Amino acid sequence: MAYINVPEGVPGIRSLVMFRPETGKPLYELAQILLRGESTLAEAERELIAAYVSSRNNCMFCMSSHAAASRCLYGDEKNIVNEVLNDMQHARISDKMKALLNIAGKVQILGKEVKEEDVDAARKLGASDREIHDTVLIAATFCMFNRYVDGLASWTPTEPEVYEEMGKRMAKGYVMPKTEINN
Amino acid sequence: MAYINVPEGVPGIRSLVMFRPETGKPLYELAQILLRGESTLAEAERELIAAYVSSRNNCMFCMSSHAAASRCLYGDEKNIVNEVLNDMQHARISDKMKALLNIAGKVQILGKEVKEEDVDAARKLGASDREIHDTVLIAATFCMFNRYVDGLASWTPTEPEVYEEMGKRMAKGYVMPKTEINN
Repeated sequence: MAYINVPEGVPGIRSLVMFRPETGKPLYELAQILLRGESTLAEAERELIAAYVSSRNNCMFCMSSHAAASRCLYGDEKNIVNEVLNDMQHARISDKMKALLNIAGKVQILGKEVKEEDVDAARKLGASDREIHDTVLIAATFCMFNRYVDGLASWTPTEPEVYEEMGKRMAKGYVMPKTEINN
Repeated sequence: MAYINVPEGVPGIRSLVMFRPETGKPLYELAQILLRGESTLAEAERELIAAYVSSRNNCMFCMSSHAAASRCLYGDEKNIVNEVLNDMQHARISDKMKALLNIAGKVQILGKEVKEEDVDAARKLGASDREIHDTVLIAATFCMFNRYVDGLASWTPTEPEVYEEMGKRMAKGYVMPKTEINN
């Protein structure tokens, strides 16, 4: 049970956003722009960064749901997600994507862990400033979401089917749950 | 120098928000609601939580600027800020505030570090669900801001006077820097 009085039977961040819609609105906007907005990184790749960071932060809710969204977006290549979560360096992703995930992994530890050589390596493999920026901000954002969800002990379902359905909805975009503020 | 091509001479997060105003907008909105919106926690106290978490994340820019904002808002009692940053448990703050800062410190490590007894302790000292929620979200939000600012190596001024001026501006509220998107 969550540490505060959130709606029952609503999982993860949705329950927290229903408790406090004023802060939920910019949080959902941020997720929508970063993960579904215009970008040269595929939506499946951005969800993969989110799942990778959440996995390193041991946040089961965010890891399971964003991995499911990434699988849904990868379609026939969905096994890539498990490959990355198990052993990123040997997954069937581009070297550029590995360099970006390396940066995301450093951000997960702490900002100052990202060194000039990490950024240079990504740039040499074709990453743009915007892609480097968005990778750092997606990683930082999930360091927030993971702590928000687990720090208040929000409900984390355990059934894989629940996350598969969640991933399909998330693939369509991030929409605030209905609350008194936006009804 | 920052790792990406941000405007020169603009410090910290402002330079990143000018590079990417679309994501800057929800980030500034979140800061404004959490730190300046209606709350039973004083603005000085909320800035103190932000400075405390930033200090633990070793983020000089966020620590210095939010400590300065908190000092400005505390007025004659501004020494409280240094007391908390040096030794929170012996600072001249209420036991409730100590219990909330304890929760914020746990969130800084990782969400799952926050235990039921930490929340119970805060509640017994008078903390409401909303105060506990906002403490967790402020702490989580600064785990994001700290990583964003340092992960891209944005410019961190070193002169205390610069932060004192910054703190005075921040005390009035969080307003997006002017960019092509909102001019």
